[in-house]
Order: sequence, then structure tokens, then C-alpha cells
Amino acid sequence: MKIKLHEPTLTFRHEFTVRFSEVDMMKVAWHGSYVLYLEDGREKFGAHYQGIGYEDYFRTGFVAPVVNLQIEYKQSLKSGEKAIVETRYIYHPGAKLIFEYIVYRASDMQEMAIATTTQVFVSPEGEMQYTCPEFFEEWKNRWLPK
Amino acid sequence: MKIKLHEPTLTFRHEFTVRFSEVDMMKVAWHGSYVLYLEDGREKFGAHYQGIGYEDYFRTGFVAPVVNLQIEYKQSLKSGEKAIVETRYIYHPGAKLIFEYIVYRASDMQEMAIATTTQVFVSPEGEMQYTCPEFFEEWKNRWLPK
Amino acid sequence: MKIKLHEPTLTFRHEFTVRFSEVDMMKVAWHGSYVLYLEDGREKFGAHYQGIGYEDYFRTGFVAPVVNLQIEYKQSLKSGEKAIVETRYIYHPGAKLIFEYIVYRASDMQEMAIATTTQVFVSPEGEMQYTCPEFFEEWKNRWLPK
Amino acid sequence: MKIKLHEPTLTFRHEFTVRFSEVDMMKVAWHGSYVLYLEDGREKFGAHYQGIGYEDYFRTGFVAPVVNLQIEYKQSLKSGEKAIVETRYIYHPGAKLIFEYIVYRASDMQEMAIATTTQVFVSPEGEMQYTCPEFFEEWKNRWLPK
Repeated sequence: MKIKLHEPTLTFRHEFTVRFSEVDMMKVAWHGSYVLYLEDGREKFGAHYQGIGYEDYFRTGFVAPVVNLQIEYKQSLKSGEKAIVETRYIYHPGAKLIFEYIVYRASDMQEMAIATTTQVFVSPEGEMQYTCPEFFEEWKNRWLPK
Repeated sequence: MKIKLHEPTLTFRHEFTVRFSEVDMMKVAWHGSYVLYLEDGREKFGAHYQGIGYEDYFRTGFVAPVVNLQIEYKQSLKSGEKAIVETRYIYHPGAKLIFEYIVYRASDMQEMAIATTTQVFVSPEGEMQYTCPEFFEEWKNRWLPK
Repeated sequence: MKIKLHEPTLTFRHEFTVRFSEVDMMKVAWHGSYVLYLEDGREKFGAHYQGIGYEDYFRTGFVAPVVNLQIEYKQSLKSGEKAIVETRYIYHPGAKLIFEYIVYRASDMQEMAIATTTQVFVSPEGEMQYTCPEFFEEWKNRWLPK
Repeated sequence: MKIKLHEPTLTFRHEFTVRFSEVDMMKVAWHGSYVLYLEDGREKFGAHYQGIGYEDYFRTGFVAPVVNLQIEYKQSLKSGEKAIVETRYIYHPGAKLIFEYIVYRASDMQEMAIATTTQVFVSPEGEMQYTCPEFFEEWKNRWLPK
């Protein structure tokens, strides 16, 4: 199933360099390395739009495990190549956190991969939440356009 | 988008143990670790149904990069826990290699995750193939039910 | 500087399989993968000789960071090959935890690598300890030969 | 055994950022992540002092496996923190490649870790070399002070 990107509400771009250790026998970034790139992108997004970074999860005791991950690979990144991950927050009314991503080669801004992740919220007691936790409501009030 | 599993033509099961290093701050297998589990599953599948293992790619010069990866996470595996990856070959008439996967907790055979990957064939000259390479046709003739 | 192995007080052996993802472009276990094998060995040792497993660190709030790591590589392990890590506790009177390791190829028990790690104890308040924490004294009383 | 740094003949510094995925349960760079940092340092060194990069190994068919690795950890790097690896070539008359490394926190240039690796040369036929391969002699002639 092809990924269909949605209109993002908030976006953040972060540059990184492909590590030698992330490269596979074909000398391009191993497809599994992109999971790291997306996680980094999400973390940088959370550091920029404060209130849903890992520190907030630790503080509130909530966790937000990834329940769905999809990546579509278009071109390959080489070891040492600079790339940009654009992390896009996709609004969803329910108790879900949806991000989409575009990974660009920095030199020519060609798309290397697109991706999407879905996270849910789990309370400190280990229960999956069907309504948004308070800290996430606060984050939405703070950052989302009214 | 939810993954919908298809009827597999060939399947192979491989048991593994979750490594301490594969566990995240929540003390369960990091969601990115599953990419390793799937790759291992594919490799073991190829070692069993001989003709599409990594050795065959090296011998023929073809490579089969993953162009699409999707994982749906259902429950969590703990460090040290035994798990089984069931790698399922899904027949496709074109020049594509499609696998689906079920990752089970070994103790009770509960489903931890389901996944799917799509690979294409790239020639030694670096060209994407629109017809199946010969070694893959031979593999299909050998293993697929007539 | 060559590693000189010492007489161990307690030892534990754990078998594992080299993962495809742990293999480098030379198709043998990447030298960095051994850090995982040692960590796994230590974790299995702690699960066997109970009282210094990760659960005990969480319970007491102490951590035991690795401050010194040395690995000497002798032969190479291939993808899929079975290997054994022998984790050896080396007695030291001070507030240190010293392990030595022998990594064997399971098929012929040839030595692939030998290694050593030193850990210190850091209190819940973040202070390095110059005397053994109580839980470690208890562990030594329980397991070490009188 | 403590690492004693030697006077380097050539050095190269490379800045990097600690990835979220490289951090362990203590929220600092996992001790095994440093093996990546050293490998990156070596690769960047080889890209700068041309003639012993991975491309040269591929071209000549020689490989240079790490046979000894030692890391001494002094302080911890946090996720997202900028750091610098200084890769130092240590001259040795024999058929060996010795590097030493200092990993600094970029913000205050405090030493986080020091390390050393030894590599040997293995011919395309798989034989360990007791004299320097020609491409390495050429590299030394080109770069080392007369």
C-alpha cells in the first residue's frame, strides 16, 4: 500500500549525516537505519514544539509507543551524505499521535523516503488511553492554530 | 492503514531471543529492532528455500532492496524473551518479492506484531528490473506449487 | 596491550546466534557487535547468579557504568553461526565489578575473541562509590566461595 | 589497564551529534555507541588523508580488520549533545594501523572517552600480512613527515 501524505499542521526539519555504521553491504544507508532517522526527527520536533518531548513523557509517566510504522524507500543515501528529515505533525481528533516524514538528500533536496508513524498513549498504570491525556491537550492548545 | 495479511504460498518459522541491547527505555524490544527480526526471518527463509539467499544475490550480482516496509505493533516483547518470526512468501506475478511476517511470543504464541515488506530487483548494472531475473524464475519453478 | 585473562571466581556460558544485521561488509560479525555479545553475557550471568541483574540496579537505584572495555579479536564469526560467550567474574576487593569474557565459535569451541570490562558503582544521587554498595556486598556473600 | 596516549603523527577532528537511538536506559550515550563514533572518526580521517579510506580497501582488495579495541570512559554524553572525535594516527614501523582517539563534549571540550584500535592487513586471498601492503606504503610516503 502506497503512503499518501497529508497536509501537516506543524513541521520541523533536522539535518543529519549518514553514519558509516548505518550503511549495509550495498554501501547505502540500511533500510532499518531510517527508523533511527524518524525517531531523531520526532525527538527534534518535540524539542522544538515543547511539551511532547521525552522529558514530558518522563514527567507525566505517560508513554507513547509506536503502534504503526510504514516507510517507502525511493532512492538511497550513501555513507557520509547529508540528509534532512522533515517531521510533519498530522492532526487527528482522537487519542493518537500521527507523524509523517520526508527524508531528503541535502545536496539536491530529492526525496529519499517518505514515512508515517502512529503512536498511542499509555498511562503510568499501563492502560491504553481512549481520550487524550491532559499534557497532550495542553500541547495542542499551545501549538495548534486556532 | 491496517495491514491485511494474505494467504502465504511458503512459510518458515525461526525462533530468536530478544537481546538486552534491543530493548528501549521502556524495557521492551525497541520498535526499530523488529526490522532486524524481519531481516533475520527473510534470511532464514532464504536459507531454507534455497535460491534466494544472500549468497544467491552475490553470485548473480542482483540485489533486492526493500522499497516498502510496514509494521503493526500489538504487544511488547521483554528482554530475554523468546519469540518466533514467521516469514510468509506472498505470491506476486510481477518482478517483486513480497513477504509478510507474524512475530509471536514463544511462550504463548500471542501475536506481538505483523509486518510486510516489498523488494524489487536491481541488476548488477544498477537498473531496476521490470521482469523477474532468471534466478528468481528458477526459484519459483523449484519451490512454488504447480 | 594484550589482554591477560585471570582466574575467574564464577563463570556462566550463554549460546547465541550471529544475526545478519550484525555482520559488516566483510560478511563477518562487525567488531562493534561484540559489545552487544558481552552485554548479553553479563546480563545472563546476572540472571543466573541473582542479585546483580538489571532489576537489582533498578530496585536499589544504583547504576554500574562500564568505565573500561577491551576486546581482542582472534577469528571471525559468520552470519548465522552459533557462538558461546563465557562471562567470568574476576574478584576485586574494591568497589569495582570486573568481568572477562571468552567468545567461542560453538561448532569447534575455537576462541573468536577475549575481552574484559570494568564497571564502577554510582549512587542514586549520581556519586561514584569508593566502597561497595550494600547490595553488592550481599551478592558477594551469597555467591563467592568462603 | 589504563590507556596511555602516544604522540600522534596525523590527527583529524570530526563533530557529531549523539542520536536518541544511541542512548541507553540511563539516558546517556550507550558505551557500545562509542565503537560507531570511533569508526566514523577513522572513516573521516581516511577521507581527509586520502589513500586509506574504504574505497582504497575495495580497490586493492585488502581489508584491515580491527584486532584490538580499548575504550576508557570518563564522562557521559547526553542525547542530542554535540561531540567531537579526534582520530590520531600513531606511527608503527610494522604492518599495523594504530589509531588513538579522544572524544570531547563540544560545548566545553571536556574529555568524555579515550580509545585505541589496532588493525592488521589481510590480503585479497585472506592471508594476514607481515609486511605493509603497497597502498599503505604509498600512503605513508604521501602523508607522513619525512
